[in-house]
Amino acid sequence: MPELRKDPIVGRWVIIAPERAQRPSEFSRPAPSPSRGLCPFCPGNERYTPGEVLAYRGAGAPNGPGWTVRVFPNRYPALRVEGRLEREGVGLYDRMAGIGAHEVVVETADHGKTMADLSAAELLSVLTAWRDRILDLRQDGRLKSIMVFKNHGEAAGATLEHSHSQLIALPILPRHVHVELLGARRHFEFKERCIYCDIVRQELADGARLVVQNESSLAIAPWAPRGPFETWILPREHGSSFEEATAGQLEGLADCLRATLRRLDVALDRPALNLMLHTAPFNEPGERRLPHYHWHLELMPIVSRVGGFEWGSGFYINPTPPEEAAEFLRKVHAE
Amino acid sequence: MPELRKDPIVGRWVIIAPERAQRPSEFSRPAPSPSRGLCPFCPGNERYTPGEVLAYRGAGAPNGPGWTVRVFPNRYPALRVEGRLEREGVGLYDRMAGIGAHEVVVETADHGKTMADLSAAELLSVLTAWRDRILDLRQDGRLKSIMVFKNHGEAAGATLEHSHSQLIALPILPRHVHVELLGARRHFEFKERCIYCDIVRQELADGARLVVQNESSLAIAPWAPRGPFETWILPREHGSSFEEATAGQLEGLADCLRATLRRLDVALDRPALNLMLHTAPFNEPGERRLPHYHWHLELMPIVSRVGGFEWGSGFYINPTPPEEAAEFLRKVHAE
Repeated sequence: MPELRKDPIVGRWVIIAPERAQRPSEFSRPAPSPSRGLCPFCPGNERYTPGEVLAYRGAGAPNGPGWTVRVFPNRYPALRVEGRLEREGVGLYDRMAGIGAHEVVVETADHGKTMADLSAAELLSVLTAWRDRILDLRQDGRLKSIMVFKNHGEAAGATLEHSHSQLIALPILPRHVHVELLGARRHFEFKERCIYCDIVRQELADGARLVVQNESSLAIAPWAPRGPFETWILPREHGSSFEEATAGQLEGLADCLRATLRRLDVALDRPALNLMLHTAPFNEPGERRLPHYHWHLELMPIVSRVGGFEWGSGFYINPTPPEEAAEFLRKVHAE
Repeated sequence: MPELRKDPIVGRWVIIAPERAQRPSEFSRPAPSPSRGLCPFCPGNERYTPGEVLAYRGAGAPNGPGWTVRVFPNRYPALRVEGRLEREGVGLYDRMAGIGAHEVVVETADHGKTMADLSAAELLSVLTAWRDRILDLRQDGRLKSIMVFKNHGEAAGATLEHSHSQLIALPILPRHVHVELLGARRHFEFKERCIYCDIVRQELADGARLVVQNESSLAIAPWAPRGPFETWILPREHGSSFEEATAGQLEGLADCLRATLRRLDVALDRPALNLMLHTAPFNEPGERRLPHYHWHLELMPIVSRVGGFEWGSGFYINPTPPEEAAEFLRKVHAE
């Protein structure tokens, strides 16, 4: 059973999920290379995954082929839906049962396609699947927040090659989300404006960090990126919860995401990449419309490695000014 | 000139250091493999590094061979000592000049030795060099804190193979240090005890997460490790600033560090590793002896990769319970 443990000094939670473990003695050997042999995410291999909780398919029965996007619980979940949310102290320390949900979203039936190869229509299906799963999971009163993310490529933490994203719904508010909400609220209290709306305005007016834009969304190199080519995609219109976005907003997002992924793919020669959805927690007061928070995507191509300075300080050293990265991405011939 | 930029939402600082940059177009090509050709850290090649600021040598002139430990400014510094500490706003955003120090500590003259191969006496020299440099750098009133860290192996961010550590002195308090101090102070205000002293007592009494101990130090698998085999080394006696440690404490630390590194090296087959010194900032009120803070080392062998979940949440998924890691390390035949 996975367990949540809290660091007694900095308050950082970790998930101890021994069912995902290799034995200690296996850590020194290299992991088997991805996708040697059978791919459990390919059509026809549905029996190798847990039963689906959502799928978009033209024809065919559940847990068979014919789908375009398919969602199921992770076979080696970091958290489980079953059980009670028990907390206990162990001397100085705190732990709680690893309650939560951990799901896999297979983004395409085509094993050979990366997310950057998907059409805007295919990306829209993926975004819609995220939305539909969040709308379902937020009904579970034990869950406080959700992380939707994608690890693409081995350097980004992916263990399977077939294009997929993941959802982890948590019984607590992760530290980064807490800090982000706090910062956004502080700005709102001072200015009575959403800080992300302010960023959208400043970046559109300035232009130096703008990568692409359409009528509903924009992609920017953020002012203080943690690494080269970090890119954020923000909706122009204020909204705190991704799952409340309109169909039109999701369409615009899919289009902007496609243009951004294509540019990163060409500029950096198909880089490994992490993508994270930042959206409001489930149980904030007045959750459906926080005036100070603004959902968005953060993309981190993995072009350098995090070292001891970053681990120790929470500070990042980035050799590429965002203005230079944005200009490079604007000039790339992406189609 | 490097520049410090602050994220307007979460307050995270990054160092934009374009002089360290590859051109954007070079990111897609693999970096040249470490130590192909000449090693600038080897004895006899001193002219390929900036002039030394400290060296321990039996005989010979500065910037020539004969040393056992040698310290010099980084050739591609993330921060520079020269210049004024100017701050300015850019619309919503904040930046300041990249004032600070960035030094390299070459830990051995022997190119073939890793830190885990060094004797306790050799490690003591390295720790003494850290101490001596911190004592010097903290006299610069512009600097608020120092990070001492080591990236060993490519997966841990090292670009040169020859065993070395680095010091970065900063004009601000990094976020992680701030959060750690805050947590420690909160515990002290509530209990009137240092939380690290409490951890030392609980871990010695419990024993399940203890890796090695001697009369002055102990190595433990922390309660909530960010990854498999994360290990902390703490002095038994309370002290907030590493540079105030006595010669006897440094000797005990060197011995404990050696035993820990040897065990990790055998258990995980010479893993890539990050090591971070956590020590009190320079200008805390009553800095020389904070009652609530306790300097220590944190070691992170790199056996898995950080993915989108960790980037987005600040949460870590760890498949190896620390009790299992500690037991495995205790049983290893390390000598």
